[in-house]
Amino acid sequence: MNGASTASSAGSEGSSKARGQADLAQQLFAPRSVAIIGQSNDPSKTAGRPLKYLRQARYAGRIYPINPHRNEVLGERAWPSLAALPEVPEHAYVVTPTEGAIDAVEECGRAGVPVVTVLASGFGETGPDGARREARLRDICAATGIRVVGPSSLGIVDLRHKTLLTANAAFDEPDLPVGRIFAASHSGGMIGTFLSRGKARGIAFAGLVSVGNEVDLSLGEICVATLDDPGIDAYLLFLGSLRRAADLRRFALEAAARGKPILAYKLGRSAAARELAVSHTGALAGEDDVADAFLAACGIARVETLEGLIEGMPLLARMPTAARTDRAPAVAVVTTTAGGATMVVDPLAGRGIAVEPPSAETLVRIKAATGIDVAPARIVDLTLAGARYEVMKGALDVLAAAPEFDLIVVVVGSSARFYPDLAVKPIIDSAGKGTPLAAFLVPEAPEALARLSAAGVPNFHTPEACADAVAAALRRRPPKPGAAVVARAAGAGRQLDEMQAYALLDRLRVPRTPSITVRADAMAAPHLPFPYPVAVKALSAQLAHKSDVGGVVLNVRDDAALLEAAATVRRATGVERVLIQPMVSGLGEVLIGYRVDPDVGPLVMLAAGGVLAEVYRDRSLRLAPIELAEARAMIGEVKALRALAGYRGRAEGDLDAVAHALAALSQLATADRTVLEAEVNPLIVLPKGRGVLAVDALVRLA
Amino acid sequence: MNGASTASSAGSEGSSKARGQADLAQQLFAPRSVAIIGQSNDPSKTAGRPLKYLRQARYAGRIYPINPHRNEVLGERAWPSLAALPEVPEHAYVVTPTEGAIDAVEECGRAGVPVVTVLASGFGETGPDGARREARLRDICAATGIRVVGPSSLGIVDLRHKTLLTANAAFDEPDLPVGRIFAASHSGGMIGTFLSRGKARGIAFAGLVSVGNEVDLSLGEICVATLDDPGIDAYLLFLGSLRRAADLRRFALEAAARGKPILAYKLGRSAAARELAVSHTGALAGEDDVADAFLAACGIARVETLEGLIEGMPLLARMPTAARTDRAPAVAVVTTTAGGATMVVDPLAGRGIAVEPPSAETLVRIKAATGIDVAPARIVDLTLAGARYEVMKGALDVLAAAPEFDLIVVVVGSSARFYPDLAVKPIIDSAGKGTPLAAFLVPEAPEALARLSAAGVPNFHTPEACADAVAAALRRRPPKPGAAVVARAAGAGRQLDEMQAYALLDRLRVPRTPSITVRADAMAAPHLPFPYPVAVKALSAQLAHKSDVGGVVLNVRDDAALLEAAATVRRATGVERVLIQPMVSGLGEVLIGYRVDPDVGPLVMLAAGGVLAEVYRDRSLRLAPIELAEARAMIGEVKALRALAGYRGRAEGDLDAVAHALAALSQLATADRTVLEAEVNPLIVLPKGRGVLAVDALVRLA
Repeated sequence: MNGASTASSAGSEGSSKARGQADLAQQLFAPRSVAIIGQSNDPSKTAGRPLKYLRQARYAGRIYPINPHRNEVLGERAWPSLAALPEVPEHAYVVTPTEGAIDAVEECGRAGVPVVTVLASGFGETGPDGARREARLRDICAATGIRVVGPSSLGIVDLRHKTLLTANAAFDEPDLPVGRIFAASHSGGMIGTFLSRGKARGIAFAGLVSVGNEVDLSLGEICVATLDDPGIDAYLLFLGSLRRAADLRRFALEAAARGKPILAYKLGRSAAARELAVSHTGALAGEDDVADAFLAACGIARVETLEGLIEGMPLLARMPTAARTDRAPAVAVVTTTAGGATMVVDPLAGRGIAVEPPSAETLVRIKAATGIDVAPARIVDLTLAGARYEVMKGALDVLAAAPEFDLIVVVVGSSARFYPDLAVKPIIDSAGKGTPLAAFLVPEAPEALARLSAAGVPNFHTPEACADAVAAALRRRPPKPGAAVVARAAGAGRQLDEMQAYALLDRLRVPRTPSITVRADAMAAPHLPFPYPVAVKALSAQLAHKSDVGGVVLNVRDDAALLEAAATVRRATGVERVLIQPMVSGLGEVLIGYRVDPDVGPLVMLAAGGVLAEVYRDRSLRLAPIELAEARAMIGEVKALRALAGYRGRAEGDLDAVAHALAALSQLATADRTVLEAEVNPLIVLPKGRGVLAVDALVRLA
Repeated sequence: MNGASTASSAGSEGSSKARGQADLAQQLFAPRSVAIIGQSNDPSKTAGRPLKYLRQARYAGRIYPINPHRNEVLGERAWPSLAALPEVPEHAYVVTPTEGAIDAVEECGRAGVPVVTVLASGFGETGPDGARREARLRDICAATGIRVVGPSSLGIVDLRHKTLLTANAAFDEPDLPVGRIFAASHSGGMIGTFLSRGKARGIAFAGLVSVGNEVDLSLGEICVATLDDPGIDAYLLFLGSLRRAADLRRFALEAAARGKPILAYKLGRSAAARELAVSHTGALAGEDDVADAFLAACGIARVETLEGLIEGMPLLARMPTAARTDRAPAVAVVTTTAGGATMVVDPLAGRGIAVEPPSAETLVRIKAATGIDVAPARIVDLTLAGARYEVMKGALDVLAAAPEFDLIVVVVGSSARFYPDLAVKPIIDSAGKGTPLAAFLVPEAPEALARLSAAGVPNFHTPEACADAVAAALRRRPPKPGAAVVARAAGAGRQLDEMQAYALLDRLRVPRTPSITVRADAMAAPHLPFPYPVAVKALSAQLAHKSDVGGVVLNVRDDAALLEAAATVRRATGVERVLIQPMVSGLGEVLIGYRVDPDVGPLVMLAAGGVLAEVYRDRSLRLAPIELAEARAMIGEVKALRALAGYRGRAEGDLDAVAHALAALSQLATADRTVLEAEVNPLIVLPKGRGVLAVDALVRLA
């Protein structure tokens, strides 16, 4: 990690912006004076905590507790109002209930307080009344220029400056370790969880923020303000939604440019959890694979377990982000307990990460270094020999230098319990010499874990967290630059008819079947530029599912049948014109689609065609536009397409043409911003070398 | 749990068997005298540990360290040989290297030592030499009647009797808590992990065993010996394979009869892990869904995380096993931190467990009990009000009495860190009053967790372990009685031809398409009892995949084409006879199969038909035979069948007929033990009410 402070933008506008960021960061995290508006005299109450914590931590700035009902709170002078203070504080934490909180923010804004953090809930998450309250807060920001963290913020903490502007009960902590990670969370409770679980695992923080409803300052904006902080090396995020995705993306790109890694946990793998995110924060909740695609495109590593998030950063910080292109990532597992090691292999495999055996050459080197004949197997099992320092150290040194691995996982058995030296010394002595290394200790072994942490060796308490963090670190790629404009789709938009949709495909060079149109009440069959049989389809910008309403007749075999089919379609749908195209059959069909997601902007999707693909939800997504290489990677992610890739001797489909069509469609992201959605379903996949053909298309404009 | 000791069998044979079990249990776990054969003088070496641990734990029996090279080990007298001892010890732990170990077992056997545990590895897991060594051990057992634990056993421990016959480094423990759980493991390292992690989480053991290669005494047999131990209430298993599945099943059925729950972790979700199980233990490794089906049929709850295994038993022990039939299990989640609670909802949903909102009536009762208007949502969110005792206690009491839930999960936020009383007292006071309850504490909160454990409230340190254990407990059902004979398939068996296979289906009443056979060189078309078009297929017991070799001609439309097709098939395959059947098309197709698994015995399988189903590995398995209700449950587990269940307005297939055919096929388990495998692929699914038809079948006999 690069801890150096570098300005991200040049020129006078840039430097004024940078100055603005620096001011904001100082007001947020290192204010010289703070007011606690609504500070209670009862330290066991939520509103009683901030003053208590600030004093416990020996915050060095000036503190103004404000409580109109008391002269004294927690043994110190209480001020009756903001107006009564001898100065305008740099940051106010408003801990009064909802209605009073809005008034307090307004008073702060008028008085020139630059930054206010708001604890109260009862805003966007609570329906129309709450939405009105949020609108009032926004109006106050616009009118006065005050910046707001929250509402529903459990606070903001800088452990270096002892700025404990928080009501989170877990900060009642006698000893607050200072580290170099900054944590930001949509959930207020999680900042206490980061602090307490981190402390137990040797992970410490520079600062933490509960961003609440992000009515003004978003999680991304707050993190951006910290980017040039030389005391911050890395970021942990707990995300409930992608509400302010544009800011998050800007932050992620700038963090990547500074070499500061980001590790995130995002709620919402399940529909049930996404529904909760909506009801608890008022945010929209997109589907989970959209979040996956977005975070990946931002270079943010995503974990799936709480402990993977807490314990994962030391590993992430040590992993290079440059993508290997020659092969999939490979992990070596070395162990003194085969059963314990297999507990890591299983969840790694579940995340698509392969544990690979050492090469024959590497085994020869291990033998030369240790005298041990390791059995050629998927893990390096030193069960009998490994409790000896020289053996484990020798094997690790050889593996760290072996070209076939991207990461080495050491799994230590029972010796770690009472012989921490024996168990972890070879790991500590071998770490940092080549390929990154992570350790999982199978028994309860707090001392051994602490020694690894102290020596800077990434270490894990459970096999699941280990596999989770390893997979997240190995899958992380540098952020995808450019594009990814975040746009909000307004309304349903306007649909094109199928011929207009084909015109768009033609411009993008997505191959489609030849088509002509005729009047639906035609008395003579048209001259067809292609042979029978044909399909006859209603041509209309109004019908989205024309098959469902009798708007499609297939396998029409001659002129008479053609006229009859046109009449049938006309009777069923009332359309004036029908579209005629040849019947096409291929080896299979896929769906390719483009849409502007309300959270994250332009997306491109590849899915298997047909009802089973729907049932299995078998699809791959990326932020658009994409290059061919990424389109090919997407094909690898759709399981059904294995059936078109020569599976068990079957004929191969033209998957290369699928990749070209997908990449071409994705160019809509830059080529035509009026398109909200464009879906080709099905795209017929012909045999290898013969291409693909769109035989239906649906396009919606803004 | 029922801690009372009850004899499982009656009559004199039964009671002599019970006596044998009691003797074995005493010799294994509470021997009055032990020999350590190969005890080293160096306590840091593996072979030096047993004597040290026995003395540290103050084992009260007589200990005989045997070491022919020394007069003294660890300060006490060492004996030169077994023969030199003043008595025949009741249990010997052999810690000498491989070859010497076999000799030592032989000597023990001849001397009349009833039980020996063997540490050495180098047996079945190491190829032909190892297999020969195992055979020698088996011969010694047969010749002398000695019972062997291992080889590759890290030992056997009874914490009540201080029998620490183990070389596991994690037992170098000054304070060994005694509990009521017995743990058995295929992996030797895991007994130290159970002990140490359990201790850290308030989970203690009566005894633990590392069963090693199970050359003589299997994991199931050792556990059976403990079944009538009144100090043992429950079992934890760590399984690497299902090598001795018949014993495991017998143990599970008897444990269930005594109300003693079993919680298991089994390695091998992934192919990579299964490959390791083979290379490390020499065991066969069946597919993971076979293990799932087997463990479920045994009434064994299976978890997927290490901490789910360590922390899960208190919950499992409190859950009723009687299956609800009126609805799927439903979980209530109550919380003071919505973000933390959602972390549990996601992994629960991933395991198919629904978190459900309280009914309107329940919300009214919560309001009456607490004065709080809880928003109607999927979780009961007390974030603002919940830190108060009366609110949390009131809400929990109402939920515990509400009929709509099978389990209540309480998720406590930051208050648990420094205010354990506040956080856990309402939970402790409400637990045990109705619906079972489990708690997950989001921050690091060891004190609060310890209070919950002390009060007997199931509690979890991570959301993943919580969801894992909750799902395992809710899915557990009473063991399926009867059948499930474990048989080992010898060789490839003998295949039937398709007509013979249909005869078997006819006996089982699995509907199949009408078929006639004719000579492949027939000069005149036969009279067909069904109309054209027909399929013409090679009839042979030798061809397993007749389509692949040109043995099938479809859509034959008249007599001339029929003769031509027969000739074509004859030329391609050389068969004498062909089978003719009508072309059948339905709404879809499935595969139903029966086979005798080498580990677990008769299995019945339902899978989607076609190549995509293969790609998705979309199937459901059960031990055979099954009843209709179970067949219907299997249909619900195959995703592809949703497309036949009225998905999005599509025509419904006759899934009831699929269930009947599946249940009928499964009766092979009792009806015909000569059948090793019977597969119907495809079984054509006709529209609802019109049944199913087998159009191909493959049967293999022993």
